[in-house]
Amino acid sequence: MSRLVMKFGGTSVANIERIRNVARHVERERAAGHDIAVVVSAMAGKTNELVGWCKEASELFDQREYDAVVASGEQVTSGLLALVLQQRGVAARSWQGWQIPILTSGTHGSARIESIDGSAILEGFEARKEVAVIAGFQGLHQKTRRIATLGRGGSDTSAVALAAALGAERCDIYTDVDGVYTTDPRVVPKARRLDRIAFEEMLEMASLGAKVLQVRSVELAMVHKVKTFVRSSFDDPADPRPGTLICGEEDILEQPVVTGIAFSKDEALITLRRVADRPGMAAAIFMPLAEADINVDMIIQVASEDAVATDITFTVPAAELERAEKILHKAQPHIGFASLNGASDVVKISAIGIGMRSHAGVAARAFKALAEKGINIRAITTSEIKFSVLIEAAYTELAVRTLHALYGLDKA
Amino acid sequence: MSRLVMKFGGTSVANIERIRNVARHVERERAAGHDIAVVVSAMAGKTNELVGWCKEASELFDQREYDAVVASGEQVTSGLLALVLQQRGVAARSWQGWQIPILTSGTHGSARIESIDGSAILEGFEARKEVAVIAGFQGLHQKTRRIATLGRGGSDTSAVALAAALGAERCDIYTDVDGVYTTDPRVVPKARRLDRIAFEEMLEMASLGAKVLQVRSVELAMVHKVKTFVRSSFDDPADPRPGTLICGEEDILEQPVVTGIAFSKDEALITLRRVADRPGMAAAIFMPLAEADINVDMIIQVASEDAVATDITFTVPAAELERAEKILHKAQPHIGFASLNGASDVVKISAIGIGMRSHAGVAARAFKALAEKGINIRAITTSEIKFSVLIEAAYTELAVRTLHALYGLDKA
Repeated sequence: MSRLVMKFGGTSVANIERIRNVARHVERERAAGHDIAVVVSAMAGKTNELVGWCKEASELFDQREYDAVVASGEQVTSGLLALVLQQRGVAARSWQGWQIPILTSGTHGSARIESIDGSAILEGFEARKEVAVIAGFQGLHQKTRRIATLGRGGSDTSAVALAAALGAERCDIYTDVDGVYTTDPRVVPKARRLDRIAFEEMLEMASLGAKVLQVRSVELAMVHKVKTFVRSSFDDPADPRPGTLICGEEDILEQPVVTGIAFSKDEALITLRRVADRPGMAAAIFMPLAEADINVDMIIQVASEDAVATDITFTVPAAELERAEKILHKAQPHIGFASLNGASDVVKISAIGIGMRSHAGVAARAFKALAEKGINIRAITTSEIKFSVLIEAAYTELAVRTLHALYGLDKA
Repeated sequence: MSRLVMKFGGTSVANIERIRNVARHVERERAAGHDIAVVVSAMAGKTNELVGWCKEASELFDQREYDAVVASGEQVTSGLLALVLQQRGVAARSWQGWQIPILTSGTHGSARIESIDGSAILEGFEARKEVAVIAGFQGLHQKTRRIATLGRGGSDTSAVALAAALGAERCDIYTDVDGVYTTDPRVVPKARRLDRIAFEEMLEMASLGAKVLQVRSVELAMVHKVKTFVRSSFDDPADPRPGTLICGEEDILEQPVVTGIAFSKDEALITLRRVADRPGMAAAIFMPLAEADINVDMIIQVASEDAVATDITFTVPAAELERAEKILHKAQPHIGFASLNGASDVVKISAIGIGMRSHAGVAARAFKALAEKGINIRAITTSEIKFSVLIEAAYTELAVRTLHALYGLDKA
């Protein structure tokens, strides 16, 4: 029998009634002839409750203890879904990360999956026709031998990694939307659901602000060529829509130049004025930030008129703005800037499409269209399959709608 | 250093503020020079929430899944207490049953502890001066390799078993009362806290209705001679009262005839009228009940006047009354009774004391005192160190107070 991994997020398992709905989705796929592994998140709200307690317990919390506490949320859901399936006459058992085991490495709280031993799950398929219900978001740390979590959204990663380990035909990620859209439909009502999107495009979409899938899960899907569907758990389990398939670009016949528009408000801008224009200046600014694990994205350098000093502007994640400012002020004597301005009223808007590779002037059309709407571009970055512009946050909706229309993404 | 096991129940860890209070108790004992293992229950209310979900998920629930779900409650508390201790500068880590491991056997949902490997915990004491915070109520089933719970109140058993495995000097069970009383102070305001009580007495007290400790934990303490204190977690951590020591009778100098009065309302009475008085009749009645795991306690047989038939009255747990009645009605053709009456308005009142062994007529004094108050005794059982009477439930308080005074247990 072919194997299938299905993943359900927190809102899809928020209570027993919703878990029963999940069971109906599982039963449909089972009736279609699949052996099934289901990956579940914690019931909606539970992870926040557990994280809240950890923070109340300790300011600088031990990530290993945090992991033991927070992983309990998925443990509960996995047991409950197994019970619901059994009640409906479907053989099922729950699996926690340490039982499979899913071995992880790296830092507790944001661990990486290192290996998965699928043999016990496969034996359950063969010997007992058993649905495997797997607690997402967690594994057994190979060094500490303690529960390690994968970080927020990690259940998507669990699902894709399991699909690869079990040799699954596909991995269905059930969520509260019915697929991947050309952009956020709350911003652009004309946004369309995509039937297919290439791994590379989805990776850029996720990295650049689309929240439908976790970046790491898309990376894994791309590396292991796991066909991944994003679809709605709120559809009628008897007759659900197919959702969006994330697949290799060879499986996409008609490649539009631009597939989607993403935007991220989690950006902040730092400008250092009158930095001495000498060798080593960039290192003096960016090394201390790198050492503090602060990710610098876009960088613009503008020479001042007197050619003695230069202004440097760059972006950091909005959550890191305050920390970055402190670090730079501390390094001021070494860097030697005249003033520092931080701003978080900016947004990064990106257009993504593998078709860009074979089309010139795609970004230039955007610059022109935005200028015509009176939108000032503060910074630009480009890569082979996307370009991003940084603009004032107030223009977010206007800019997204402009680009969405420009590249022909509006609904017919 | 000497080792100490401390156990805290659900109300003692109900929120982070209360968990901080637990940490203060741990710090006091650590300052006194002990290596410490702390056993914790789930936060008050959490186990009920988890059990409720299991019941909602499945009527006939798989105890293995139930265990996976319900054990998460203690997992959370153990992580949180470790975090709180760390925050206060005390080295600590959480341990779940499967990590130690605490191996169990028997039925999931009411498993028995088979063995505990204390080596990792002892290594933490030696190498890192680390407080071990252990999730109570659970272990790793040696056959299924899944989480197994010990049944309600099982954290007491976890604590005593750990104390035995670690060679602890004593085991302190912190609860919401400050010790073991001569009887329930809510019924008899003159009830006194006992400084000491013998294992055998405590075992009878727990079996006969006193809810302060789980029966199984007292059995274990008796077998392994673990000195166990019952004391209050609500005392000032800087200056707590000692509580009640449960110990060998050789450690109790003055042994009163009666140490305590217990009562249990969880009793039901079944009377079968005009059962044919022939050999095998008792087996016909009690075998089907035994096969259904229904515990029969007191049995009274009264021959009818015509000497052809007999009336048989016996007690079963109140929760089993309905099921017992069904089983007996089904067996009626085989037993041949004329009528069956079930009643749950009865209470079993027991007087317990190892001093009874060397004193005659202890029970007879009770029968006389109860008769003088107009209390009708429906059944009597006795053993070496206790006797029990079954009476109408309405007389509970009167009977308990009468016996409490009769045996000199009222406060001076």
